[in-house]
Parts: sequence; C-alpha cells; structure tokens
Amino acid sequence: MSVQDAIAEISTCLGQRLTRSKSDLDLHGRSESHFALSRPDAVAYPETTQEVAMIVRACAKAGCPVIGWGTGTSLEGQAQAFQGGISVDFTRMNKILDIRQQDMDVTVQPGVTRQSLNDDLRATGLFFPVDPGANASLGGMASTRASGTTAVRYGTMRDNVLALEVVTATGEIIRTGTRARKSSSGYDLTGLFVGAEGTLGLVTELTLRLHGQPEAISSAVCGFETVSGAVQAVIDTIQMGLPMARIELMDAASVAAVNAYSGMTLPERPHLLLEFHGSDAGVAEQAETFGLIAAEHGGSGFDWATRAEDRTALWTMRHNAYHAIMASKPGARALVTDNCVPISRLAEAIEGTQADLAEAGLPGPILGHVGDGNFHAILMFDETDADAVARAKAVSDKMVNRALDLGGTATGEHGVGIGKLEYMAREHGGAWQMMGAIKTALDPQNIMNPGKLVPPRE
Amino acid sequence: MSVQDAIAEISTCLGQRLTRSKSDLDLHGRSESHFALSRPDAVAYPETTQEVAMIVRACAKAGCPVIGWGTGTSLEGQAQAFQGGISVDFTRMNKILDIRQQDMDVTVQPGVTRQSLNDDLRATGLFFPVDPGANASLGGMASTRASGTTAVRYGTMRDNVLALEVVTATGEIIRTGTRARKSSSGYDLTGLFVGAEGTLGLVTELTLRLHGQPEAISSAVCGFETVSGAVQAVIDTIQMGLPMARIELMDAASVAAVNAYSGMTLPERPHLLLEFHGSDAGVAEQAETFGLIAAEHGGSGFDWATRAEDRTALWTMRHNAYHAIMASKPGARALVTDNCVPISRLAEAIEGTQADLAEAGLPGPILGHVGDGNFHAILMFDETDADAVARAKAVSDKMVNRALDLGGTATGEHGVGIGKLEYMAREHGGAWQMMGAIKTALDPQNIMNPGKLVPPRE
Repeated sequence: MSVQDAIAEISTCLGQRLTRSKSDLDLHGRSESHFALSRPDAVAYPETTQEVAMIVRACAKAGCPVIGWGTGTSLEGQAQAFQGGISVDFTRMNKILDIRQQDMDVTVQPGVTRQSLNDDLRATGLFFPVDPGANASLGGMASTRASGTTAVRYGTMRDNVLALEVVTATGEIIRTGTRARKSSSGYDLTGLFVGAEGTLGLVTELTLRLHGQPEAISSAVCGFETVSGAVQAVIDTIQMGLPMARIELMDAASVAAVNAYSGMTLPERPHLLLEFHGSDAGVAEQAETFGLIAAEHGGSGFDWATRAEDRTALWTMRHNAYHAIMASKPGARALVTDNCVPISRLAEAIEGTQADLAEAGLPGPILGHVGDGNFHAILMFDETDADAVARAKAVSDKMVNRALDLGGTATGEHGVGIGKLEYMAREHGGAWQMMGAIKTALDPQNIMNPGKLVPPRE
Repeated sequence: MSVQDAIAEISTCLGQRLTRSKSDLDLHGRSESHFALSRPDAVAYPETTQEVAMIVRACAKAGCPVIGWGTGTSLEGQAQAFQGGISVDFTRMNKILDIRQQDMDVTVQPGVTRQSLNDDLRATGLFFPVDPGANASLGGMASTRASGTTAVRYGTMRDNVLALEVVTATGEIIRTGTRARKSSSGYDLTGLFVGAEGTLGLVTELTLRLHGQPEAISSAVCGFETVSGAVQAVIDTIQMGLPMARIELMDAASVAAVNAYSGMTLPERPHLLLEFHGSDAGVAEQAETFGLIAAEHGGSGFDWATRAEDRTALWTMRHNAYHAIMASKPGARALVTDNCVPISRLAEAIEGTQADLAEAGLPGPILGHVGDGNFHAILMFDETDADAVARAKAVSDKMVNRALDLGGTATGEHGVGIGKLEYMAREHGGAWQMMGAIKTALDPQNIMNPGKLVPPRE
C-alpha cells in the first residue's frame, strides 16, 4: 500500500478533515525555528482517539510517517515532516474532559492549550503550573517534556503528567499510569512517553496534576553587579529551602532589550526576577529572607511588587523578552540555545558563553530559568551572511559541549527533534543506542516521527 | 556454557566473594514476605561496576538468571531466585562517592542504605528524604520505586533519582541522565530503570537529589471519629496547599496495637500523624491552619510536638507500627497490602476494606500514607490454617480490584515482583504487553530477574 492509498483511506473516514491544501501543508511544514520548510503529504484533523488510531493503522500499512502537531511552537523541528507523511493536527481534540477538584487532577485532550486550561480552572481554586512561555498544547508540552519559569517550584511535564492514553505505532490504544498519585506497578511508561516527541506513539489524552492557587503571590526584581553574584544568590536561596515559584535571570543585554521594548528603566546589569507563592505571612517572610541573601551577593535595587498589576507588568516583560530581543536586531534570525547545567557551574557556563559571543562578534542576550540551571542565549544573525550563520552555529556547539563537560545536558526543555540530534551520542553514549532499541521494539516500521531523537536506522 | 561454567568463571575473578555456602544461599533465597524459600545457585559480592559487568557477561553466556540484592527488605519477592541463578549482593558497593553541597546532590553506590547516607549528610545541612521505613539500600529503593511517609512533600524515588549508572543485560555499562535538574534530551531512561526491579539491568551507581534540612520541624497527632473525617481533613489540607512533610493515618486497630507495644495512650479511634517542615513561623502557621481544618472534620485531641524527643517518640511509634501489629498476634504470618487510590476515593477504599475484613473474620489493622492515597492492611493469619490463608488472599484480591475500580493502582510503593504479577494485565491492559516488548528488546535472553514484573515469555 502506498502513501497515496493511506491518504485515500484516511480521507474516506475524515472527509474534509483530511486536507492537502497548500496553505495547510505550508503551515504544518514550518516551525518557529531556523529549519527549512518541510511539508507533510497531508494534514489530518481527528476528533477522537478512534480516528487517530485509524490514521495510524492506515499509515502503518503504507509505511507512511505520522507526525503529531499541537500548536507548532516546538523549537527543534519536532513537528516538521522532514520525510513527508501525515501531520496529525490535534486542534479539534481540545476538550477538557474531567476536572476533579478533590483529587486536584484533570483529564484533557491533547489539543487543549495551557492557557485555555487555566482559564477553565480559574473558578476552581486550582491551576496548572507548567509555563513554557508559548501558549502550547498540553499534548505537545508532554511530548517535548516542556517546563519553563515555574519548574523550580512545580516541576516539569515529567512531574505533572499522571497518566496518558496513547495510540501506539500499530494503532492500538493503550493507557499508561492511573490517577493514583504514585505507583510502583511496573515500568513507568507514562514517563517514557513524556519527552518521546511522538516517536513511540501519539498522546490522545492526558491526566495532569493540578495545584492550589496560592493564597498570596509576590514578585520582585533585583539587580546584581555580576552574573556570578546573581547565581550565588540563587544557590543560597535554594539551599535555604525558600520555595521560590519562579527565579529568572536576565543578563545586561537582555535588560537593555526589554528596556527598549517594554519601556522599563532597569539598570543595564544582570537581574533576577522572582515570584513567591504562599500565605500572606509566608511570602512576606520569603521576600525578606531573599532580600538579605541578595544583599550578601551584591544585589541592589530590590523592588517588591505585591500589587497584581505590577506583577503582571513584570512577567509580561519577561514573557515578551524574546520578542524584545528580536526587535533589537530587525531582520535577524535567531538560534535559541537551551543548555542546563548543575547550578554550581551555571555562572561559569554563562560567563563562558558571554566570552564566546564577544569573540565571535555576535549578539546573544541570555535569559535563564536559573533555579534549574537552565539558560538560553538568543544568537542573532543575518541569515544571508554565511559567515555569521557559521559563527552562531559554532557558538551553539561550544555551549553544548561546555554544558556536557560541566555535567549538564544539551537541552533543558526544548527537546531533541533534529536540532539536537548531533549531540545525543556524546551526551548519552551507549544509552542513546538503548533509546534506539526501545524505538525499534515499539515502532519496528519507524513510522512515528521518523528521523527525530533516536539514532538513524541502519 | 552452563550455569556451573558461569559460576566457575565468576569465581575465578571474585574468589571468596562468590559463595555457595548454605547460609548464604538461604539468606538470599528468603524475603520478609510470605513467599517460599527460593535459593540462588550462588551469591556474588562485587566491589566495582566492572565486576558487576563481568558477572552479567558470564551469566549472559550461560543464560543464567541474575538477581540484584540490596538489603532483602522488598515485600513482593523481587530479590528471590525463583529460577535459580546468581544473586548479586551489593553490600560491598556501599561507598558515598561524592556529596555536592552547592548542587544539593550526591552520587552513591547502590549498597549504601538510606540511614547511612543521612548519617553522612548530617553535617552538610542536607538530607535524603525518601523513607520507606526499612533501612533499605538506595539501589533497591530505586529499583522498587520506593516511597514512604515523606512522599507527599518530597516525592518518591522517581522524583529523587537524577542519574544512574547501569549494567545492561549484555554486560555493557551505560549512564542515564545527568546532574542537570531537568532535561528534554531523549527518552527518560533513568525513569525507566527506576521501578524496573532489576529486570532491565543492574543499577551500579545513583545520583540523588538532596534537600535542605528544614529550619524548624513540628509534629502533631490528632484523633478523628471516622476514617472519612480524617481523610476529608487530609484532602482539605492538601487543597489549601499546606506543605505537609508527612501525613499518616492509623486506624483504630493500629492505634490499639501501638498503644500495647509502645506504651502510648491514644484513644482507640482513627488518628492522623503529621509533620511540618519550614521556618519557625511557617510551621507554626501550618499547624494552626491544620488545627482549624481538623476541627471542621471531627478532629480532636490535637497534640502538638515541637520538642525533638516528642517527635522522635511519635515517629518511632509509627515506624514500629508493623512490629506492634505483628506482636498483637504472636505466631501469625502477614500479607501486607499496598493499594493507592485517588484521594477522593480513599475513605471508600479503606471503609470497604474494613467491611471485607469483618466479613472474613480476619484481623487487618490499616496504616496509610494518606496524603498520597496509599494504604496498607496488615492481614494476619495462621499459616497452617489453609482456610485463613485463603480468606486473607481473598481480601487482598478484593482490595486490589476495588483500588483498580476506583482509578488506582495495585501497588503504591512495594512493587510487582511475583506478588502483584497476577494483577498487571487488569491494571495495565495493552500497556503490560508494551512493558514485555521493552523487556524483550533490552534483555532478549531474559536473564535479568526473570519471572518478575513483565508478562511471562511465550
């Protein structure tokens, strides 16, 4: 059976919801990153798990690639169709199926976005904390093992997915995990699918942990003389056991960009942005303790925001930082790095990167989820300047190798896709071959998002 | 090559550290549970990862089973040699390799026990929180995905293992994970090995998350009229976001047993035992809030212990509860159940169990890590009374089936081994077959702890 036959079979079932329009193929061949347009052969918009299973079974008969699509916000080419095939767009599977307040969990379809979930949760006193910045789909966030600004307190998708429904590479529907908060019942398949980037199956339903909306929230911003002063303040804060909800670093170049873009007037030096969640007394105590720690490490201008509008301004500025940075170099393309290192090595990793950037003569403002040791440099270049492209790639290479040398990882939260494939052997050694063996066992035909994450098939 | 050849080959390398003495074979053929003595063919005491790899390679040539052994405290027969083979005892791999205070992590060999790790950590201001009761080895705790009284605050082994070194079924040495706090770099193999019960490989080194010793600790005990009142207080406490470090339930029968054993004088009704970790002001605030919640649900006799010796007495009593319960029926054997359900269904699960026990005429005091929805009934019987044994087994069956009906799991923290094997198909459906496919891919000869956890090979 050919790919065309598979498309015809799927089309019989989905009708208009299987499209080959140029605009749809273009949309699903693009990403927010620097990878070339790579169109799928068709785009399917299933509405049920059974339809997803039907699509996969048809593709299995034809050996046709199947690629999941959430909101297209992944950064390493995970959702692009580099080998063609069917892009399975989960936009129409966007129902919140069951909110269970007492158990503080929720079951959703994969196309629900994190913001729409939180909108629906507002009245319940609960919220879903994982916040990668983009308003991504929850299925995509699980598949990428996304995290973001709140992971230091609430964990990543790894920590917040309780159970999954998955369509396997043979089109079988399975369930992993239960709604129990913990289990020792066999291999952690939920954990295996979280971060698998759709290479082992398609997530068709997720049960997620929710958290209580905090009684009180306070935010703060604090400048430091040096990145290492800021990082040392973070280390002390975590060692004290202060339950920071967010603790973000912006280097001087990032601060300059947000000043220009958001009309802020922060001094152009490294800053930490913080948020505390707790009781009124608790957040006041935490803020006071943090103020003392910051002062010990050269922190100054500690500015405290308990009013909701000030907090909103602060985090809107942070969420817009990427756009602010891109606006500082009109017309530039960006390569966004994503290293994560043990926190004791974070200052070294960031300062090394700054030196590399200076040497390469490239702008690369740095932002970081520093409580986790994760930071991004936004490497900007003119894509028509081959030399600048090469220098950006070389800086990114150096950063990954430094992160691995320091005991860290090539990707803290953006995933592998094709963008980090070349570092997998170095990061994982024989364990990468083991990933390949699992992939081969569960997807012998290599139809699930082929060419991503695992070693190329011989 | 035969098993005898493999033993000879290993013996050449390990000398006296490969034994076939009757006492050693007996020790490694027993468990703390009700399973029959099942001796290995030999017991190996490796001192290095290379020796473990050599043992596995020799066994692979002979198709000889390899079973890991920590402290022998698993409860579902995980460490017993039901098909003979080599028991790999990690007692001599008991070094703490590197404590990194700034990163709050530690690398240990698998034979280190949780108490010896915490003894070593005392001066650092850090501690390792996972506490299953027994002074188990950390390799065993990881392999069983152990948890215990503190999981409600600090998580289980799943949440506290950052990275592993593993000897695979072919005797290769691989590393999974890094010391970065988070990563999106490929399949979560660390998570796959945690809870795999040695069926995919042997853990030879672990990097664990540590936590700051809290500035202040307070404990409390509080009686309730009914189990459901106690459980409702727990639900409200968690929904309020109170960061309880421990929240344990003892039913009236357990209270009676600990009163008799530990000289306590608690009223014979359901009780919650609690611990709060935080700042001085924080724990005082948490305790006050909990007191108000408890009072709303019929809680009384709320008794507050901030003095270290009172706390120690309370938690020693809790840790000894199993022995107290066993002492209440001298000569009895026990079947310890381990269900975990969504917390909204916990009262129903416990009250249903109490009704089953009354109907069966069996004593079965109940203890639970109720913040996680996990509870144990200690089903006691005279093992020479076949009818009593059958009734205990029938109650355990009913409990598992009820837990699954309520959206829970057959085992919250004790694992599968052979004791829970019969429930795996019902709990996991097609996902259990997927576990089998992973096992076959990574251990095609089925030498790693065969007969446990996954579906029997055809």
